[in-house]
Amino acid sequence: MSRTNHQYRLAARPVGLPRPSDWEYVEEPVTEPGEGEVLVKVNFLSLDPAMRGWMNEGKSYIRPVEIGEVMRAGGVGQVIASRNAQFAVGDHVSGMLNVQEYCLSDGRGLTKVDPALAPLPVYLGTLGMTGMTAYFGLLDIGRPEPGQTVVVSGAAGAVGSVVGQIAKIKGCRVIGIAGGESKCRLVVEEFGFDACIDYKSEDVRKALREHAPEGVDVYFDNVGGDVLDAVLSRLARGARIVICGAISQYNATGQVKGPANYMSLLVNRASMTGMVVFDYAERYPEAAAELAEWLSAGKLRSLEDVVDGGVQAFPDTLLRLFNGDNTGKLVLKVADE
Amino acid sequence: MSRTNHQYRLAARPVGLPRPSDWEYVEEPVTEPGEGEVLVKVNFLSLDPAMRGWMNEGKSYIRPVEIGEVMRAGGVGQVIASRNAQFAVGDHVSGMLNVQEYCLSDGRGLTKVDPALAPLPVYLGTLGMTGMTAYFGLLDIGRPEPGQTVVVSGAAGAVGSVVGQIAKIKGCRVIGIAGGESKCRLVVEEFGFDACIDYKSEDVRKALREHAPEGVDVYFDNVGGDVLDAVLSRLARGARIVICGAISQYNATGQVKGPANYMSLLVNRASMTGMVVFDYAERYPEAAAELAEWLSAGKLRSLEDVVDGGVQAFPDTLLRLFNGDNTGKLVLKVADE
Repeated sequence: MSRTNHQYRLAARPVGLPRPSDWEYVEEPVTEPGEGEVLVKVNFLSLDPAMRGWMNEGKSYIRPVEIGEVMRAGGVGQVIASRNAQFAVGDHVSGMLNVQEYCLSDGRGLTKVDPALAPLPVYLGTLGMTGMTAYFGLLDIGRPEPGQTVVVSGAAGAVGSVVGQIAKIKGCRVIGIAGGESKCRLVVEEFGFDACIDYKSEDVRKALREHAPEGVDVYFDNVGGDVLDAVLSRLARGARIVICGAISQYNATGQVKGPANYMSLLVNRASMTGMVVFDYAERYPEAAAELAEWLSAGKLRSLEDVVDGGVQAFPDTLLRLFNGDNTGKLVLKVADE
Repeated sequence: MSRTNHQYRLAARPVGLPRPSDWEYVEEPVTEPGEGEVLVKVNFLSLDPAMRGWMNEGKSYIRPVEIGEVMRAGGVGQVIASRNAQFAVGDHVSGMLNVQEYCLSDGRGLTKVDPALAPLPVYLGTLGMTGMTAYFGLLDIGRPEPGQTVVVSGAAGAVGSVVGQIAKIKGCRVIGIAGGESKCRLVVEEFGFDACIDYKSEDVRKALREHAPEGVDVYFDNVGGDVLDAVLSRLARGARIVICGAISQYNATGQVKGPANYMSLLVNRASMTGMVVFDYAERYPEAAAELAEWLSAGKLRSLEDVVDGGVQAFPDTLLRLFNGDNTGKLVLKVADE
């Protein structure tokens, strides 16, 4: 049984937004698994802002994708051939399957998932890295207390929407920041935030004065740039800022805009701390169990934005993260289940 | 016995560096203490970068000095009249005595000091707010561990020189950053740092690569600006940045330069935390006792830069903090002991 694999490999390091010429679309025969290996047919791929960083050269929290290498991506799929005792044909798994139709793996980093408990894309979102990032970033670093004010940027996005909902579950007042009226409506009506500020049409600083009159106790930052500066100007004493991302700056070709108001950290005895979800790997099961419980109890809504485009749609679909087009978890459907 | 008091009052809020026209030199008769009050003759005043911030309008960690008000300053002096049972004539005291020759006080915030244990200016430096800032900022927020690399900017200054020495006592490798060859020599030879980078003649980032090849575990920042950005680019995993000051930005008339490399906090799971010494008031005695012990054991050198100019020299002397002229604790001598 000979199969053909299609992949996107990194052809060049992008300057600014990734362009078509930064990718190479490759076709190659699928190799059958050797001893200890499994062959996974990819169903869905996770599209994440962090991917833009993986395409850059240089030291980061994870090694860069090399030129010529298949682009890194989380995914869920099904085992279709196995010479690894831990995985049987028919098992559904999640892990780093990368931007391709078939993934040959030694099984390390693959986790079995149950499609009866949640649709497969949810394992890339709320029950995947996205949910883990929201859970540990908010609870471990943000440490919100009941009654405190939590502000979340990228509030209609995959991580932000989960952060805000967890903060609500924990008894906080939650203010989202998102771009555009329809996203803001979604954030309040679907995800249950107390309010949402439209950074495209509102003065964020002024709106925060209204919505967070006592100041911001926890700020979960996905965007950086001017929004981070606006929130810095409204911190409460002892505030915690979680630096999860800076999507506004990922495609900057000039120098990144540093937060000019950072001295507010001193005035307010506040902290700004970076988080990388991989550090919490040992505690994923604990978070997944709690998130699944909230999901099944209807306390948490998971929104996936599934693009049914096949692997070849990867480059265009990725750009939707950076032009503000997507809401919820952006997932690329590669093949039917 | 009629005495005359000379004071500097704030005449205008400075734009950029304070100018002579921002001050009003006032002469007024000294009032004798009422019930519960003491009259203190000021011997020395503490000159601190933070004073520049106190002159600005707006919310900060302490209320601004109002226009027409005597400029706020820490000082040490001697009680020359008392109707407060806690203080006797002849007692030496430290506290907020402000920029003047005589201070009438209700005694709140005054602490008795012993000139036999240390010269009076030391109570403004290593045994005063300066020492407290260094002690709590480094040990409580920086939390250095033996063998770790600690970097201190403003290393020849009042706070920085004490921070580095405490870090050495705690078994760390300590790298200073200071401006000019003679300051750097002082930092290494007098204060015992392992090395000192001259930011005026060296590429700080490159020098850190050499002096901190494993990365920076703790950075105590007194200066902000480009130096902060350079250190951010060299953080070790889990690094702690203590934001104590940003002297390079205090007189900026445009927007403050935010740290463009702040995403290094994410990459390195690092934190940046602001500190205000007043929060530690209850623990001052604990710090003072330990600092005094280190001083008397010869483990800690205290350097004061005493300008014998009288109160009228205040405006010019203050500027020495911002033009890089001073080393160690800048103190203005107001009157003989």
